[in-house]
Amino acid sequence: MAEGSIWEAFESAAFHSLANLTAIVDVNRLGQTGETMHGWDLEPFARRGQAFGWHAIEIDGHDLGAIDQAYAEALVTTDRPTVILARTEKGHGVAVVANKNGFHGKPLADPEAAIAELGGLRNISVSVPAPNGPATPHRFPASGELHLPSYEVGTKEATRKAYGDALVALGAARGDVVALDGEVGNSTYSEEFATAYPERFIQSYIAEQQMVANAIGLQVRGWRPFAATFAAFLSRAYDFVRMAAISRADIVLTGSHAGVSIGEDGPSQMALEDLASMRAVFGSTVLYPSDPNQTAALMAEVVDRRGIVFLRTTREKLPVLYPPGEPFAIGGSRVVRATDADVVTLVAAGITLHEALAAALLLAEEGIAARVIDCYSIKPIDAATLRAAGVETGAIITVEDHWPEGGLGDAVLEVFAADADRPPIVKLAVRHLPGSATPSEQLALAGIDAAHIAAAARDLV
Amino acid sequence: MAEGSIWEAFESAAFHSLANLTAIVDVNRLGQTGETMHGWDLEPFARRGQAFGWHAIEIDGHDLGAIDQAYAEALVTTDRPTVILARTEKGHGVAVVANKNGFHGKPLADPEAAIAELGGLRNISVSVPAPNGPATPHRFPASGELHLPSYEVGTKEATRKAYGDALVALGAARGDVVALDGEVGNSTYSEEFATAYPERFIQSYIAEQQMVANAIGLQVRGWRPFAATFAAFLSRAYDFVRMAAISRADIVLTGSHAGVSIGEDGPSQMALEDLASMRAVFGSTVLYPSDPNQTAALMAEVVDRRGIVFLRTTREKLPVLYPPGEPFAIGGSRVVRATDADVVTLVAAGITLHEALAAALLLAEEGIAARVIDCYSIKPIDAATLRAAGVETGAIITVEDHWPEGGLGDAVLEVFAADADRPPIVKLAVRHLPGSATPSEQLALAGIDAAHIAAAARDLV
Repeated sequence: MAEGSIWEAFESAAFHSLANLTAIVDVNRLGQTGETMHGWDLEPFARRGQAFGWHAIEIDGHDLGAIDQAYAEALVTTDRPTVILARTEKGHGVAVVANKNGFHGKPLADPEAAIAELGGLRNISVSVPAPNGPATPHRFPASGELHLPSYEVGTKEATRKAYGDALVALGAARGDVVALDGEVGNSTYSEEFATAYPERFIQSYIAEQQMVANAIGLQVRGWRPFAATFAAFLSRAYDFVRMAAISRADIVLTGSHAGVSIGEDGPSQMALEDLASMRAVFGSTVLYPSDPNQTAALMAEVVDRRGIVFLRTTREKLPVLYPPGEPFAIGGSRVVRATDADVVTLVAAGITLHEALAAALLLAEEGIAARVIDCYSIKPIDAATLRAAGVETGAIITVEDHWPEGGLGDAVLEVFAADADRPPIVKLAVRHLPGSATPSEQLALAGIDAAHIAAAARDLV
Repeated sequence: MAEGSIWEAFESAAFHSLANLTAIVDVNRLGQTGETMHGWDLEPFARRGQAFGWHAIEIDGHDLGAIDQAYAEALVTTDRPTVILARTEKGHGVAVVANKNGFHGKPLADPEAAIAELGGLRNISVSVPAPNGPATPHRFPASGELHLPSYEVGTKEATRKAYGDALVALGAARGDVVALDGEVGNSTYSEEFATAYPERFIQSYIAEQQMVANAIGLQVRGWRPFAATFAAFLSRAYDFVRMAAISRADIVLTGSHAGVSIGEDGPSQMALEDLASMRAVFGSTVLYPSDPNQTAALMAEVVDRRGIVFLRTTREKLPVLYPPGEPFAIGGSRVVRATDADVVTLVAAGITLHEALAAALLLAEEGIAARVIDCYSIKPIDAATLRAAGVETGAIITVEDHWPEGGLGDAVLEVFAADADRPPIVKLAVRHLPGSATPSEQLALAGIDAAHIAAAARDLV
């Protein structure tokens, strides 16, 4: 109960008037190392539960009659959730450990004696009634036909906008798609879904752990949740994401406003560690689209992807490179520029792809032919295309709007790790603490703009 | 106020009776996208503050008299902290935006008109009295002489125990060293410091965000905080660590029970993403000692290290390899086994170093000479020693008790990234979701034990 996420959950349940929810707090006095802050005092928990809008019941957790009565009271409490505060004894019934500190997670010296003391092996069987409600969760009406948004080549649009547009399209096509916001939906463009489908949009307010928890709960019931906030703020929910992966949950998390290219708002708002932390989630998929049509195409892929999907979107409007309708596979990449004379490959994703393309133009003027790869799928990564580029061009530069550790560059390095013959790989990434500046100033200061990429290419070839 | 960490802070402040703390909540009704859960209703906040043991005062936040009165009331409230709930209007005084949704973070259309409306440029200057207390924080008496613990070569001890022992030694030597626990001090061995120096030990209970917040606050006042919990649980505080780095805080975080080698407790307790997430923290230092004497020596180094230091400790007792008193530098490594005939280098840290040494013995029996490097400093990493080993042996295997992404293997890959001539590098890491098993079974199942390392070496050479 000391963990803040508990109170996010209490707040959320009361706000949504989840009267059919009953929480049981096992107040056994002892933590792992000693007495908890409130020990056996139920009153602080009751007061807090009530203050957060719950009905609170204090009982002796070893009194079966009291437990029954509390459950009955919870059932007739129809205007708010109920918390049952059950005072119990840790290790109850086994005198050698009962209510004694220092036995948390420790095997008993004499387990047979403890079993005997508890009444011996009794093979008690308790039958639990099945839930009353329907086994199949509700599905909203949907067309079954996916009409992805499209953007004209040569215009500009932010990938975060394409996320919002595509999410609405998915909502129209599928009755299982739901969206969650951390009170930044006008930045992530989740608000478009909120407007189109308010009945399946969950505002989680500024409580990212609860947002991810909501998403995990929804997928348990067969929904397809898309939760979005600033990528930096998803770090607040990192343990929930870790545990979601371990629990084999299927959720899509979108992090907007990634990198120094958000510009003026300063480093607290810039996700620069999100690719690293999300790549290191078990079984995760990490995508960083470079173009609005590509973002839409990838949304059509991730909707059926298992495990934790992280989609990184960019604040700035980016030039539309790819025509509408072009398919993009998870685990793929796109060679955006290539000739037989290429002597270096520039590997980029998101906003840096556009800097890499500009760098290739600068280099072309000097007679240096550069291949450019859009590595929008960071995990899994398109090893075959990268390997071919390594062999054919003999040198690779990776460029990412992220700290040097654990992001695109490291993912590319891994591809070539065990190869006997490998190209040299130069990793451009953010190496200083950014302040406030315009997006283009930030990219230049971080050494990841076209000029710096071109300079690195000159050095390398 | 929706963020759970707020309630960790409320709980902590009341529990410690911080009567001289006053919090001001600016209740301006509007979030970024719309109305907050409670809008202008102060009562839910007052009720919660009171339930958590605070004195609550509700005021009109635009009424200067009411503000003065609230501060006076807070000063005479000497038994608990005070929260002032100030109802305000967002954008107050500028009619075009006042109390209107949709203007969060947006520049005004006519800033000059807004300044005029607010009374024009007035150059108001307010002098604030300096704090009453002493400018120098309290220092506990200390010897000034550091006597690190020592462990006999050939015996066994866990690095987490060496952490606790060394922390006590640092406490004896220095009056600025303080320790924090997340209610697992008997696992991390912070409890040794709690016993020796209860007056400078802060039990933060199971509230990791608050534990890191406490550490950040302590270093602001010139203390040297060491905070420890299970490495997996530090993921709960990842945003706080990120913000600590951006705020240029100097704190040491120790994560125990890392990796599958904790054995039976299952994946929820196993940190397998901690090296990746901590490497991707700006300016961080990441250490993963392999030996108790080395752990103690590194503690003497980190006590003066700037920025975020992450020290990863192991649950299992490990053989003592290094004699007491041997110095270990941050950014260094140790070549534990080497001959002129080495045809492969095994790079490991922590528990896998001991598996690598065992693998080298297996390989020696087959006539394959393997170099073994203890890469205890993962960030910064000892590039020179790794490069020399790469040139001299021609092949590298990295072994880590961590997911494949962003840990030791990726740190080694980065060293060789831009080199034209590089050895092939095979990365052994945890690639399946672990269940419950003994530590040695876990290492085998994960493919990171001596037998698997030896097999990978055979394949490579």
